[in-house]
Amino acid sequence: MTSKDLLNSIREKRSFLCVGLDTDLQKIPKHLHKEDDPIFAFNQAIIDATAPSCIAFKPNLAFYESMGTFGLSAFIRTVDYIKEHYPQHLIIADAKRGDIGNTSDMYAQSFFDHGKVDAVTVSPYMGEDSVSPFLKYPDKWVILLALTSNKGSDDFQMMQSADGEYLFERVLRISQTWEHSDQLMYVVGATKAEMLKKVRAIVPDSFLLVPGVGAQGGGIEEVMANGMNDQCGLIVNSSRGIIYADSSEHFAARAADEAEKIRHKMEEGLINKGII
Amino acid sequence: MTSKDLLNSIREKRSFLCVGLDTDLQKIPKHLHKEDDPIFAFNQAIIDATAPSCIAFKPNLAFYESMGTFGLSAFIRTVDYIKEHYPQHLIIADAKRGDIGNTSDMYAQSFFDHGKVDAVTVSPYMGEDSVSPFLKYPDKWVILLALTSNKGSDDFQMMQSADGEYLFERVLRISQTWEHSDQLMYVVGATKAEMLKKVRAIVPDSFLLVPGVGAQGGGIEEVMANGMNDQCGLIVNSSRGIIYADSSEHFAARAADEAEKIRHKMEEGLINKGII
Repeated sequence: MTSKDLLNSIREKRSFLCVGLDTDLQKIPKHLHKEDDPIFAFNQAIIDATAPSCIAFKPNLAFYESMGTFGLSAFIRTVDYIKEHYPQHLIIADAKRGDIGNTSDMYAQSFFDHGKVDAVTVSPYMGEDSVSPFLKYPDKWVILLALTSNKGSDDFQMMQSADGEYLFERVLRISQTWEHSDQLMYVVGATKAEMLKKVRAIVPDSFLLVPGVGAQGGGIEEVMANGMNDQCGLIVNSSRGIIYADSSEHFAARAADEAEKIRHKMEEGLINKGII
Repeated sequence: MTSKDLLNSIREKRSFLCVGLDTDLQKIPKHLHKEDDPIFAFNQAIIDATAPSCIAFKPNLAFYESMGTFGLSAFIRTVDYIKEHYPQHLIIADAKRGDIGNTSDMYAQSFFDHGKVDAVTVSPYMGEDSVSPFLKYPDKWVILLALTSNKGSDDFQMMQSADGEYLFERVLRISQTWEHSDQLMYVVGATKAEMLKKVRAIVPDSFLLVPGVGAQGGGIEEVMANGMNDQCGLIVNSSRGIIYADSSEHFAARAADEAEKIRHKMEEGLINKGII
């Protein structure tokens, strides 16, 4: 999927929402437990309900891996389902991988050759040769962790060099010099909206994947004000606020409502910026 | 597995070798392809052949994940086989995970509750709350990436703060203040033996997992000279040099020979240091 495809999709849906499929057997509605594959049944209902309001889906691998081979099959079925029924939606495998060159090759193969996802999140800690194997696939995306939304992001990402550069700024700057850097996006936590300006100063054109926006779209105005560029340049994720909005048999309809609320705020931002 | 258990094992085997099970269907001997589960068949032979010379096994998840559910079953069978037949050997899942708190919880569950491994490698980029869920399991180990052996390690791990501290030094120093930091080990690349002194200045007592030692044990003297403490404090990994030493039907015997050569060098170091 090219950035042009992505922008078309944003314009068509009037949205830059990503629905995070952090599917946990303990949290899905009880009535689904009688299904053969409750995880896939839940995902399928959430995907069908939210697809009109979003442009991307992001299953987090941790949730699937914690269920062993059963979880892995549910992950694969989910990706196949999106590909078949919603081919214009970006599929992000949230995996936060990163290893030495030949090993990252194996991960890249898993996700892009076999997995058929469009993008994978990667940790920058090991540097260029741990990321470049993922960048070899045309029209696939690497979403590099830059500034995450959790408390621990202060521990290392906010380390400053002698000339005042933060580690997350260094990650942005250095990674932009790598081959195929036009296939890079970056994870930038929404709780650091004041940092978005610093990010945009280094990567004005890159897409940013922004996690941590609240269930009701809280904080999204600030993200749009500081992070949006004239090609949108944003993919904002919401997981629990949408997929676990309700635990009854009406969970899918409620998820659709929550996704639509966020999409509506996004539409206003896109109009204000003159993108739609 | 406690550090006392580990030291007992080192003394008994007169070795601190870890055999890396980076098993690749393309690289294993051709005659194994007729087996139902060639990956497991290969691992079983390598484990039986090298167990007398080593104290740990380290399957790298990338290799198993790249084969989908088939690979994941081979991984699980491999872990079960080591647990059953070689319960004193440390099992390290080389996964380099790390995510926000609740998601790291899921990964920790995968490996320690279901996976039954003794240790897992974790990336420090996201900070304390991405690592602490792994530290909640008594007698389990987190092996934090500090200074890796690949070329890209220079990109970020060698970033220096205003007062001259490298990022990898900060990772060592800060992580030692976390709860259950006695369950932390660190990945320190063997190609940076001169850096081992800096590492030992910050974590004199921690175990270091050292990758990148050559097939014939090249570089191991330098690692022992700069990294060994009076409890040994080293686990040195070799993967390809051992497991792919030979691609004929004699692969297991050749792997045993290579492992034994390295073990022999290690024994000398342990004697010189008065540990055995």
